[in-house]
Amino acid sequence: MTSTTEPVTAAHGRPVAPSHGALRPLGLDDVSIEGGFWGDRQELNATAIIEHSEHWVERMGWVANFDAAVEGRLAADRRGREFSDADVYKVMEAMAWEIGRTGNREMDARLQALVTRIAPVQEADGYLNTKFGRPGQEPRYTDLQWGHELYCYGHLLQAAIARGRTKGDDLLVETARRAADHVCDVFGPGGIESVDGHPEIETALVEFARYTGEQRYLEQARLFVERRGHGVLGDIEFGRSYFQDDVPVREASVMEGHAVRAMYLAAGAVDVAVETDDSQLLDAVIRQLATTVARRTYITGGMGAHHEGESFGSDFELPSDRAYSETCAGVGSIMLNYRLLLATGEAKYADLIERTLFNVVAASPAADGEAFFYTNTLHQREPGTVPSDDEASPRASSSLRAPWFEVSCCPPNVARTFASLDAYVATSDAQGLQLHQYAEGTVRAAIDAGTVAVRVATRYPADGLITVEVTETVGKEWTLSLRVPGWAASGAELTVAGETQAVSPGTVTVHRAFEVGDVVTLSLPVAARWTAPDPRIDALRGQLAVERGPVVLCLESTDAPTIASVNDARVVPELDDDNGHVTVGVRPLAPVDESWPFGATGATLAADAERVTLVPYYSWANRGPSTMRVWLPVAGADSVVPG
Amino acid sequence: MTSTTEPVTAAHGRPVAPSHGALRPLGLDDVSIEGGFWGDRQELNATAIIEHSEHWVERMGWVANFDAAVEGRLAADRRGREFSDADVYKVMEAMAWEIGRTGNREMDARLQALVTRIAPVQEADGYLNTKFGRPGQEPRYTDLQWGHELYCYGHLLQAAIARGRTKGDDLLVETARRAADHVCDVFGPGGIESVDGHPEIETALVEFARYTGEQRYLEQARLFVERRGHGVLGDIEFGRSYFQDDVPVREASVMEGHAVRAMYLAAGAVDVAVETDDSQLLDAVIRQLATTVARRTYITGGMGAHHEGESFGSDFELPSDRAYSETCAGVGSIMLNYRLLLATGEAKYADLIERTLFNVVAASPAADGEAFFYTNTLHQREPGTVPSDDEASPRASSSLRAPWFEVSCCPPNVARTFASLDAYVATSDAQGLQLHQYAEGTVRAAIDAGTVAVRVATRYPADGLITVEVTETVGKEWTLSLRVPGWAASGAELTVAGETQAVSPGTVTVHRAFEVGDVVTLSLPVAARWTAPDPRIDALRGQLAVERGPVVLCLESTDAPTIASVNDARVVPELDDDNGHVTVGVRPLAPVDESWPFGATGATLAADAERVTLVPYYSWANRGPSTMRVWLPVAGADSVVPG
Repeated sequence: MTSTTEPVTAAHGRPVAPSHGALRPLGLDDVSIEGGFWGDRQELNATAIIEHSEHWVERMGWVANFDAAVEGRLAADRRGREFSDADVYKVMEAMAWEIGRTGNREMDARLQALVTRIAPVQEADGYLNTKFGRPGQEPRYTDLQWGHELYCYGHLLQAAIARGRTKGDDLLVETARRAADHVCDVFGPGGIESVDGHPEIETALVEFARYTGEQRYLEQARLFVERRGHGVLGDIEFGRSYFQDDVPVREASVMEGHAVRAMYLAAGAVDVAVETDDSQLLDAVIRQLATTVARRTYITGGMGAHHEGESFGSDFELPSDRAYSETCAGVGSIMLNYRLLLATGEAKYADLIERTLFNVVAASPAADGEAFFYTNTLHQREPGTVPSDDEASPRASSSLRAPWFEVSCCPPNVARTFASLDAYVATSDAQGLQLHQYAEGTVRAAIDAGTVAVRVATRYPADGLITVEVTETVGKEWTLSLRVPGWAASGAELTVAGETQAVSPGTVTVHRAFEVGDVVTLSLPVAARWTAPDPRIDALRGQLAVERGPVVLCLESTDAPTIASVNDARVVPELDDDNGHVTVGVRPLAPVDESWPFGATGATLAADAERVTLVPYYSWANRGPSTMRVWLPVAGADSVVPG
Repeated sequence: MTSTTEPVTAAHGRPVAPSHGALRPLGLDDVSIEGGFWGDRQELNATAIIEHSEHWVERMGWVANFDAAVEGRLAADRRGREFSDADVYKVMEAMAWEIGRTGNREMDARLQALVTRIAPVQEADGYLNTKFGRPGQEPRYTDLQWGHELYCYGHLLQAAIARGRTKGDDLLVETARRAADHVCDVFGPGGIESVDGHPEIETALVEFARYTGEQRYLEQARLFVERRGHGVLGDIEFGRSYFQDDVPVREASVMEGHAVRAMYLAAGAVDVAVETDDSQLLDAVIRQLATTVARRTYITGGMGAHHEGESFGSDFELPSDRAYSETCAGVGSIMLNYRLLLATGEAKYADLIERTLFNVVAASPAADGEAFFYTNTLHQREPGTVPSDDEASPRASSSLRAPWFEVSCCPPNVARTFASLDAYVATSDAQGLQLHQYAEGTVRAAIDAGTVAVRVATRYPADGLITVEVTETVGKEWTLSLRVPGWAASGAELTVAGETQAVSPGTVTVHRAFEVGDVVTLSLPVAARWTAPDPRIDALRGQLAVERGPVVLCLESTDAPTIASVNDARVVPELDDDNGHVTVGVRPLAPVDESWPFGATGATLAADAERVTLVPYYSWANRGPSTMRVWLPVAGADSVVPG
């Protein structure tokens, strides 16, 4: 592993702050998104998503569980699933980043009020959980498979890190520290030699070690990563692969089992590997992710092909209609890819972050920020029904976004990601700045020669033009790096000082003695394009997708009122992109009414193609019940018996 | 509904004996399968499957639960899931039919021994269940969603019916009668106004009413059918459609939810409809099944496209690799289709019985009868691992047949179906005999003019020639009917008295004054043929299957040692059938190693095709771990970006 950066201090509002790596993270103090696609999402988060989430964790009684604990009303009065404490912590993490980002004082008061309801529940030895350990409850740590106690601590620690890195130590951080000490006391050497069924504590402990400087937390995280995969958890109907307890992390060749668990675990493993200089462990995760991306990832960046077990499928098993692609797995993938970006500096990790942000995370919240997708299907066959505004929904069976879920990990995961999104935009190293995600805003960083800063102006992804103006510089040469996305295989151009050159996917660098006002422009070929699937993906044979820049498009029935069903659409290869208004030619399948569906003699299509608009996948299902598909069957590709 | 038959009495070893309908059932006393494909399965059942099942219900402690109940050791000593009593009853039903079929005295003693262990558990009011109602157990009927108490009674009644119809009343029948009375007392008018989460009691109560003549049981079944669909059960995460409690049976348009539940319920609804002359209810089920067969059924006859909830998917959602196609859903489909065959006389129901018997039920047991498929996938992507001989397996995650399951409904369901299979072969009416399934053996029936009988000689399905010789006749004209399967669209021929004519799918009749020794031959075109899927099935686009007569074939990796994976096979349209040795031309996909699977530029195939043998789907996975696919991608059908 390269080690070109200096240790960072516990400041800057950085969600992730490795002691070393190829790139240095920047934080909310260094980067500011100001408008545009992501600025709009941050505004929605600030004005709707976070408050909506606060409202629902109260309404569901998940915060009141803490009150009930203090008042001695547990087990009787407990509500929600075994992991509901964690959803409260995730909302608090989102609030903490948001307060750090904007200085919202009212929200700060609300966060402090939440902390004062939670902290008193902590027991003398640091244990903190509303579900276990009281009369009428199961004893502590008796159900590590499903109990989620360490998972809940993990999110408590993440909330505390957000608070500490933006405001400094307070009661939340103290509470987290006592919990982390407790975990080390109970699960350290000589203690319970096991792990949590749901990873999360691993990455949280490493980050808390980075924040506090306490190496004991890192060592505990290392123990959790190393123990896993040796059958330390009980066997379950899904099999131990469900929680990655069948193969040790450093021996696995691909991600498997529950996708969120796999991603969180891998993020923790990278953290441990970086801090312990364990290149074998780091390489193992890199290899697993590479295979997973090549064979087990949807075009949206979504992960998880099975509803059952919310899990990865086999290689190339990527059904559109049963895509699980949990929003939280998308968040987990971004966590993992960001850590690998910092460790290696390789653009492919920023590529997948971009794809996943636009096509999974941005797809989850409704336009009003008050309803969410938990799963992110790529093919909605039936319009389905509108979920209740008043009740939490089952996690995966609603076809429209729902306001909340009985298992509601996803909405607060979106909230904490949006609130801390600035950090994912850019990094620095000793020699300069690297732009990874393109958003309107500013980036400022200390490099060896001093402080440099740029302002980015762009309408990306609506438009491919990205203008970077130097606003602060040093009196010598430094390097500005820009990512050319993997999808921009041809047509990308970089202009520096009036000179334009074609550039290829990867990282392009401009090394010069910049002056304030210097402008570098990157032009990316965002016009709509066809994409064909790997021939080994059975579910996609004879189909094509349309992408525009980093955005996956889809056919939504709302835009095709004359076609009976998106299921019956067949596209002809006529694609038009009029400044972002994308249309394709569609020839609908003629109605068929056979009593047995095997023995077809060919598909009969309407004679003339009609033009139908495609819309960004992230925007679908905002106009009422609809059907939708990302992958479009091509006219003529249906099976015919050889004659 | 037509009503051409007279009431049948409680004899003849008939599993189903409606009071009227288009066709009269025959039973184990009337039909005898003697050798051939199904004779071999009955022999395997007699010598292996039934004993294996007896052994495992003992070994798992599911019979011992009854002993523990008598000895006051419950709740402490109970083992198995909440429905384990039912698996014991199903094994008993299989034994009862087998004893009726063969007169096996040793098995009769074993069955009686089982009955004497179970009967004493019944309480004074008729309640009988090892899971509920004792100190330390949940109270009776407090969990109708998941408790399966009525489901267990249903299988108790079915076992008693098998016993009563083959041997007459005994302690098992008495026990069942007390249980049925209890159900009417508790769930009748003024009682608990609900149903069981898992249907089965409905069809069992109607048949028990037919057996005993007690109309109260029929009325109770009617109440259960009518109550369902009005949200009488609690809501669950899967949604009420899981147990068909969202839409009343007579209003539903298609089968939905848990496939076994749907089939058992529909069978009960047909029974109620027939006995109460409720043509609206009968038509509703007929309509639902027609849509289900046209849109939600696998080429194997298998039902259930989702692992999650073991349920039907949407229309045309039929993924091969995630096919659930539970063996029990196949059995349930045969139950339903047989009842509709009796009610309507339509050949299409016998068609689906044939398809499902050959390609679902026959696929479940291993060649040695000591391991079973619970689910029946149509595409095995990875060879997987050999299940333990010593332990029960998870129901759906093993890729090879397992000796037993924690949830082990399927093996005894296969056993009771094989043991009573004779009944499905033929029926009678006032004018003659109808042959529905072609098996070596004899059929004898009383018609208006007297008794007629035939001997069937055939190697079907290996060969298409079926020879029917009259062995007993009456002194006037009568009608022999033969089913021409739906798959025999062209090439079927009937020969009567030396005259051959082409016949089409459906029912062909020969009406004449038969003499003993007269021969009618039906020749079916069983040679291997290509089958194309409905263009609306996304999972099958660009693929073809090969069928041979009623048998679905598959490509198993064992037969293609030179091809890296069946996933990479591409077929060319060269199909050869050399007396049942079927081969196709295969051009394997060249190895590809892309880092991202979207953006393919086309599939590269090996230049030359090699010939690979296809084997019957029912026989796969008998030669060690393998990969397998029923649907074969066609060379040239992979997606390519238009350019």
